[in-house]
Amino acid sequence: MMEPALTAFSQRVKHAVDARLEHAIEHLAGSGAQLKAAMHYSLTNGGKRVRPLLVYASAQALKPDQEDGLDWVAAAVESIHAYSLVHDDLPAMDDDDLRRGKPTTHIAFDEASAILAGDALQTLAFELLALAPFTAELKVGLITQLASASGAKGMVLGQAIDLAAVNQQLDLTQLERMHRHKTGALICASVAMGALAAGATTEQLEALQRYAEAIGLAFQVQDDILDVTSDTQTLGKQQGADSSHNKPTYVSLLGLEGAKAKAQELHRDAHQALARLGSAADTLRQLADYIIERKA
Amino acid sequence: MMEPALTAFSQRVKHAVDARLEHAIEHLAGSGAQLKAAMHYSLTNGGKRVRPLLVYASAQALKPDQEDGLDWVAAAVESIHAYSLVHDDLPAMDDDDLRRGKPTTHIAFDEASAILAGDALQTLAFELLALAPFTAELKVGLITQLASASGAKGMVLGQAIDLAAVNQQLDLTQLERMHRHKTGALICASVAMGALAAGATTEQLEALQRYAEAIGLAFQVQDDILDVTSDTQTLGKQQGADSSHNKPTYVSLLGLEGAKAKAQELHRDAHQALARLGSAADTLRQLADYIIERKA
Repeated sequence: MMEPALTAFSQRVKHAVDARLEHAIEHLAGSGAQLKAAMHYSLTNGGKRVRPLLVYASAQALKPDQEDGLDWVAAAVESIHAYSLVHDDLPAMDDDDLRRGKPTTHIAFDEASAILAGDALQTLAFELLALAPFTAELKVGLITQLASASGAKGMVLGQAIDLAAVNQQLDLTQLERMHRHKTGALICASVAMGALAAGATTEQLEALQRYAEAIGLAFQVQDDILDVTSDTQTLGKQQGADSSHNKPTYVSLLGLEGAKAKAQELHRDAHQALARLGSAADTLRQLADYIIERKA
Repeated sequence: MMEPALTAFSQRVKHAVDARLEHAIEHLAGSGAQLKAAMHYSLTNGGKRVRPLLVYASAQALKPDQEDGLDWVAAAVESIHAYSLVHDDLPAMDDDDLRRGKPTTHIAFDEASAILAGDALQTLAFELLALAPFTAELKVGLITQLASASGAKGMVLGQAIDLAAVNQQLDLTQLERMHRHKTGALICASVAMGALAAGATTEQLEALQRYAEAIGLAFQVQDDILDVTSDTQTLGKQQGADSSHNKPTYVSLLGLEGAKAKAQELHRDAHQALARLGSAADTLRQLADYIIERKA
């Protein structure tokens, strides 16, 4: 359940980023109909667009009335996120048939199409940033940030750690390291890129970074909680999938109550990080609340 | 067989680009040892570094004494090329166990590692360009060029067309369209990026583009010829692999002699495109000769 103001904001951002992504896919030259369809399918799977929301909310916190070009940034981040889901779901990786209640891309199409659609979505992300209506300096800053967060120092490393962890005993430090890379890095990048586009100072970037680290982990702790407390229909994926894969989770390490306490602690950290930002940061605060309170 | 001058140039470029790639891989933070090893393995498979050579030779044709930063550009292009080979070799794609006489990445490691190494190599390419010692304007131009050539309008589209063509009858126009995307686009981008780094005029870029299109196709025609005339050991991959996959080739469509005539025609086109460039373009001319005369 989102606050009404957050719901309106969320719908506006979703509309803007979806329009930007539709436009980008439509304008791919050539008649690679199957490839375009697989890319489009992968991008429109009913996702909550959390990363685009963070891009917009972070920019808004610093420069409330200026949204020019944020759709390009949000579309780039979402395109990276979509590619990572398509590749993570592949049989050689997590081997998931269902995501948000729909067949995953390699089930709806085939494995080769899913690999290629993921590859092309990654390229699209960098192309969107290179073509965005910003100064060359800002574009290079955004591209550097996104590449660093999504490559072998960031998201891809997290997925590699995650795969290596199946049937292994990870302690809390190792689990946190995995999540900081696998999902945290791109969430931090979303916040940082919105802030960069709004001309953030170093001090503002640091505060937003602390906020993003806290909600990035909170998001994952909440995912682990929902994996055991929600049902398959609400979740849109197999309930209990993580525990049945023998993957370590916050719930398996801390117990359900311990995981809930951890989520609350991170929620407080997120709010504290925003203490010196005024009411313009309220959407970021509402997003932190939503991440903890969501049911799917 | 390369000309002695080309051999010396080739060794110098290979040394520079390998050093840049080694440095990039070594400096990946975190301890993703398996991921780094799979990336390193994929980049050091004995490739001829044709695309880096084109980057350097193209820049040299316009600005003979200035190589600063070209190693970043060449490393980026080679990183995209390496990622595409790793993904193309996967079981769900071309399912190749051997490349240049060595086990492909998913055989030497595992499928998940190969998918992730490919993903991270693509990211690395854009990161290298974003960090290269150029003006922000030039970096954005290079990133735009590389993204356009390698994504769903370029290389990835070519691979999608190629996969869809198995067991299909393609005519010459369709075969050429596939190759123009699958391998031609990145070869054109290599030449264009070297030229951009050397401050090419529009006229120079157009001439170099015609050269690159001709050698890009010539490279593929020669590959098809070698697939039937060479042996597995010289080739470093299964001789006759393309025909046994029921893939259309220039040889299957034109016959061996027809394919050889086509290669010669493209070779002439390449030389004609360089007619207005002076002796500084001699390395580009030697590379065109090498592409037609190579045995593997």
